[in-house]
Amino acid sequence: MIVVMSPNATKENLQNVVKKLESMNLRTHLSTGDERTIVGVIGDKKIIANLEMEMMAGVEKTVRITEKYKLVSRDFHPQDTIIDVDGVQIGGKEIIVMAGPCAVENLEQLREAASAVKKAGAKILRGGAYKPRTSPYDFQGLGEEGLKLLRQVADEFDMKVVTEVVDREDIQLMENYADILQVGARNMQNFQMLKALGKSTKPIMLKRGLSATISEWLNAAEYIMTGGNENVMFCERGIRTYETFTRNTLDLSAVAAVKELSHLPIVVDPSHGTGRRPMVAPMARAAIAAGADALMIEVHPHPEIALSDGNQSLTPDDFQKLMANLGEIAKAVGKTI
Amino acid sequence: MIVVMSPNATKENLQNVVKKLESMNLRTHLSTGDERTIVGVIGDKKIIANLEMEMMAGVEKTVRITEKYKLVSRDFHPQDTIIDVDGVQIGGKEIIVMAGPCAVENLEQLREAASAVKKAGAKILRGGAYKPRTSPYDFQGLGEEGLKLLRQVADEFDMKVVTEVVDREDIQLMENYADILQVGARNMQNFQMLKALGKSTKPIMLKRGLSATISEWLNAAEYIMTGGNENVMFCERGIRTYETFTRNTLDLSAVAAVKELSHLPIVVDPSHGTGRRPMVAPMARAAIAAGADALMIEVHPHPEIALSDGNQSLTPDDFQKLMANLGEIAKAVGKTI
Amino acid sequence: MIVVMSPNATKENLQNVVKKLESMNLRTHLSTGDERTIVGVIGDKKIIANLEMEMMAGVEKTVRITEKYKLVSRDFHPQDTIIDVDGVQIGGKEIIVMAGPCAVENLEQLREAASAVKKAGAKILRGGAYKPRTSPYDFQGLGEEGLKLLRQVADEFDMKVVTEVVDREDIQLMENYADILQVGARNMQNFQMLKALGKSTKPIMLKRGLSATISEWLNAAEYIMTGGNENVMFCERGIRTYETFTRNTLDLSAVAAVKELSHLPIVVDPSHGTGRRPMVAPMARAAIAAGADALMIEVHPHPEIALSDGNQSLTPDDFQKLMANLGEIAKAVGKTI
Amino acid sequence: MIVVMSPNATKENLQNVVKKLESMNLRTHLSTGDERTIVGVIGDKKIIANLEMEMMAGVEKTVRITEKYKLVSRDFHPQDTIIDVDGVQIGGKEIIVMAGPCAVENLEQLREAASAVKKAGAKILRGGAYKPRTSPYDFQGLGEEGLKLLRQVADEFDMKVVTEVVDREDIQLMENYADILQVGARNMQNFQMLKALGKSTKPIMLKRGLSATISEWLNAAEYIMTGGNENVMFCERGIRTYETFTRNTLDLSAVAAVKELSHLPIVVDPSHGTGRRPMVAPMARAAIAAGADALMIEVHPHPEIALSDGNQSLTPDDFQKLMANLGEIAKAVGKTI
Repeated sequence: MIVVMSPNATKENLQNVVKKLESMNLRTHLSTGDERTIVGVIGDKKIIANLEMEMMAGVEKTVRITEKYKLVSRDFHPQDTIIDVDGVQIGGKEIIVMAGPCAVENLEQLREAASAVKKAGAKILRGGAYKPRTSPYDFQGLGEEGLKLLRQVADEFDMKVVTEVVDREDIQLMENYADILQVGARNMQNFQMLKALGKSTKPIMLKRGLSATISEWLNAAEYIMTGGNENVMFCERGIRTYETFTRNTLDLSAVAAVKELSHLPIVVDPSHGTGRRPMVAPMARAAIAAGADALMIEVHPHPEIALSDGNQSLTPDDFQKLMANLGEIAKAVGKTI
Repeated sequence: MIVVMSPNATKENLQNVVKKLESMNLRTHLSTGDERTIVGVIGDKKIIANLEMEMMAGVEKTVRITEKYKLVSRDFHPQDTIIDVDGVQIGGKEIIVMAGPCAVENLEQLREAASAVKKAGAKILRGGAYKPRTSPYDFQGLGEEGLKLLRQVADEFDMKVVTEVVDREDIQLMENYADILQVGARNMQNFQMLKALGKSTKPIMLKRGLSATISEWLNAAEYIMTGGNENVMFCERGIRTYETFTRNTLDLSAVAAVKELSHLPIVVDPSHGTGRRPMVAPMARAAIAAGADALMIEVHPHPEIALSDGNQSLTPDDFQKLMANLGEIAKAVGKTI
Repeated sequence: MIVVMSPNATKENLQNVVKKLESMNLRTHLSTGDERTIVGVIGDKKIIANLEMEMMAGVEKTVRITEKYKLVSRDFHPQDTIIDVDGVQIGGKEIIVMAGPCAVENLEQLREAASAVKKAGAKILRGGAYKPRTSPYDFQGLGEEGLKLLRQVADEFDMKVVTEVVDREDIQLMENYADILQVGARNMQNFQMLKALGKSTKPIMLKRGLSATISEWLNAAEYIMTGGNENVMFCERGIRTYETFTRNTLDLSAVAAVKELSHLPIVVDPSHGTGRRPMVAPMARAAIAAGADALMIEVHPHPEIALSDGNQSLTPDDFQKLMANLGEIAKAVGKTI
Repeated sequence: MIVVMSPNATKENLQNVVKKLESMNLRTHLSTGDERTIVGVIGDKKIIANLEMEMMAGVEKTVRITEKYKLVSRDFHPQDTIIDVDGVQIGGKEIIVMAGPCAVENLEQLREAASAVKKAGAKILRGGAYKPRTSPYDFQGLGEEGLKLLRQVADEFDMKVVTEVVDREDIQLMENYADILQVGARNMQNFQMLKALGKSTKPIMLKRGLSATISEWLNAAEYIMTGGNENVMFCERGIRTYETFTRNTLDLSAVAAVKELSHLPIVVDPSHGTGRRPMVAPMARAAIAAGADALMIEVHPHPEIALSDGNQSLTPDDFQKLMANLGEIAKAVGKTI
């Protein structure tokens, strides 16, 4: 940490700052400029992490040098992590596609969707059994019944299941049905849930919060990893900006950022990221080109009667066409699909 | 709802749209312009709320006319709601001040803070026992021990207690100690927790999410009210924008917006809203002038050693000066403090 | 400036950094921690301002300590600046109100508006003769004819004129008619125009850009002041955020920020800041409570037929009521109106 | 346009609304629901464009159905526009790369940069002669001397020149040296300059404003096209969001949006879009995959001594490697480079 003294700080102000830091067993280095003095602070990171110096007389501001997360950081783990989801590898040479309806509605819908996406190349079936919805009057999902349908249909088509957990009470139940537990954008900083997922035996897919910084996102993953669960993958799903043409602004630079800062895999969700069917395919292609390890795409056999997010769902036909096209992009970045 | 047909929609497209709407027992009105036809949709609001028409051939877009929330809406409840917190009225003529440290640290700190803020005129003691923190390595709060200290000190100084609930598991426990349960910004759309709070006997203070729209915020309150708990107050605490000089951007226009759209009271938190000590007083004054019913302000006896948010905490002295000044502003808008 | 070396920087990397800095006649101070070394850089500010060190091998990042603006800074000019607009003082004890229609439409409209706002207490007449409009098909203003009307009507009612300049070519012409030249949000970083206004003899009102940081805004004012024109006032008019209920998000904390960082006066425009008529009055009150020196408010005799921004314009009646109410707020913060 | 009456509008309110609309030669269609009436407005678009109905008694809100731009719209011009820049085609099968230093500094720097980027495959040389800088104390560019160097070096290497115009006064001068005139983000809504560029004989590259919506951006292009200049290309260069890890948030979904709404070509600038050297290559790949027609990339022979934006400039080596890799991506989307 660096403490910047204000131009009119007194000698005594400076002495007090140094005294306080030294009393906490921290070392200091002073740089005295024409206008102000800067104090470099060195020592135990946990102590520094909790320092609050800006209230002291004469202090103008402080600058934090290091991020707090460790286990998610590439500094501490230079090689890419590959997560094994019961035989499906996420983070390696092969780009994995997760696809299916936004919400599980009934057996027929799910089977139709699964059949189509499996045939086109998807390995993981997505579908919400518990749906976080803005209004209490919107469809909230089928609950455990939805989980059962997901498991049954995934097994039928030899697929894995990813589905969202919205309450830490449900984790154990969900582990019976799902292969990957998804944390939704609204729960990215539901720290009690993150801590509980740290004890789960299942891989976690952590979606980025609507207005979460890259740093907050990585710190949220750190909550899971400090609990002991090392199988965390990120999922970029668009951030909230002033733009209203798209539902969210898909931040593909986050893919490059996560790859630089962390060893964990990253998934991209162009369906929520754009909210508009015609944009899903170009953004899926761009995600792979940017370095994403996996895609998550909404496909509904009959989007016009979907109970949620019909506007952004691909038809099985659209999806089939998209998949046929992704192989070339994958090849261009040295991967397969 | 209004369905806007695209300029190149066929007659058949239009017939299919009308047929679908009528099959759901909705009525339609057509406006035919030179370039496109617009379909007005009339009927049962719950059916309309779940309509997804944009996937149908020939549909360009749809426009929703009415918000989904009802119980929180001023349309359904024109008079201001006054919430009685065990004798302290929030939402009436008197502006109520909640004050205290960000986190409860120990008995001495809390007693010192409570003594000072009570003397200056605060009626409700604030303090976090469970702290949602960005990093797992930051101080997470004293837990139940903190709740006990809050209750003990509040009773000693004849104050009420407001404190944050971070997990729906804790609600029952917290009801034993607190008078108002606070939902933090990160949990504003933790819908399972909101539903559980709908069953609580305590008033709820619902902070606005970091990037929540006014509409999402009101819908979140609707989750609590549909559960049966009518004592909900809002708390504006700053939204996330591109500006970095302040910790958040305090949106005081949200006060006027909530007053227009809802009958529920609104609190303003200029401490988190700005994150900078010198800004707390001017923003507290502005909040009252804008029509806020209550203020929530961080006060720490020794901000320079606070375990969290020291940079934005007032000293007891600062707070005393601020309170002395607020009376005139309150009077100017026809209130007392 | 502080240069933070990366944990795996070599000794040679560090030597090269120091050598480069010293070759530019800058002094360095090293703080060596367990993981990384930090280099404090001291010396001529203009040289430091142009330093780009992040490309050098071993450098992780750099942190700038000081802002580049000087003339606008309160550090260099501790007392508040009061701007004299031909006898009307902005920045002193009296809160000045600027009011009038968004666009000048014709003599009758302007005279009706001026008569009403003058009677209610406004001292400065606002009105656009050149209108920056999103679409080329929108009304673009009356041009010089509008300027003439403004001057004629202002003189008739003994008022001053503020109006927007949209092109540096127009500055000389506008000086013949206006008392304050306004720079609109879209031109806040039209640096050629700012430089030209630095040579103007008229006071400048610099509106904040739609997504300008406080720092960029102050730097824009520095462009004007370095040209020799010391009479610059800021105008907060709302920033662009994700919220769509209001036209913009009025950032009243910017008032406190500008007061802390600069000696120049600040005006608040609650009309553009909210874009909604019922919000103008509460936000005008809040602006004064936050410390604003002046207000700018749109008033149109017949908002329902206004050629622009009718939705946010007050009627003369609304305005009269608002003004009657502002005196008490002004008094509460030690001012008059 | 649709006018939504409020639930408590009177019959008279409704009659007045209809009367006003009919007095302007507009036709109306009424849809009467249980709670409110909706008025569809049909007729001359220019009249509708200027309607302001929200001030009328009983009106709750209005909803605009159609965008105002026409010439830029794909509705009016379904085929892709290809812009011929003196033999280099932008918008066709071949992806064009523009590269060079942020600012022109001297002959040697520019020649070194041009030689490298030409060899790697760039066809257009970029470089700023007039630099819009946040602070008046930053390097402002070489002016006409810079233009001369650009022309000389481009001719030497058989390249075209793109450079930024910051003042409408300079347009004629710049036409003597440049092949494409760039409008920077800060001037995207400098409408006087846009109008003047509508009279230029040179193609225009219109960068997206820092917080411009897609709609505002297309309307800005409409300003140029209504002047008679049909050779307009867009350039996405990142928008301003709350994220600070990157300089801006590169919005690649804007590429798909522009392709959907307009027939004009779109360029992507991953250098300004990210502000971080390691992100330029992945974002350049992603831009092509998303459908971009061209790329603009900063390359500096010695980024560590660049007078501006060194942190985001590639070295000639980096650039060479990137270009070698882009061919495969281009092929995957049916293009060449």
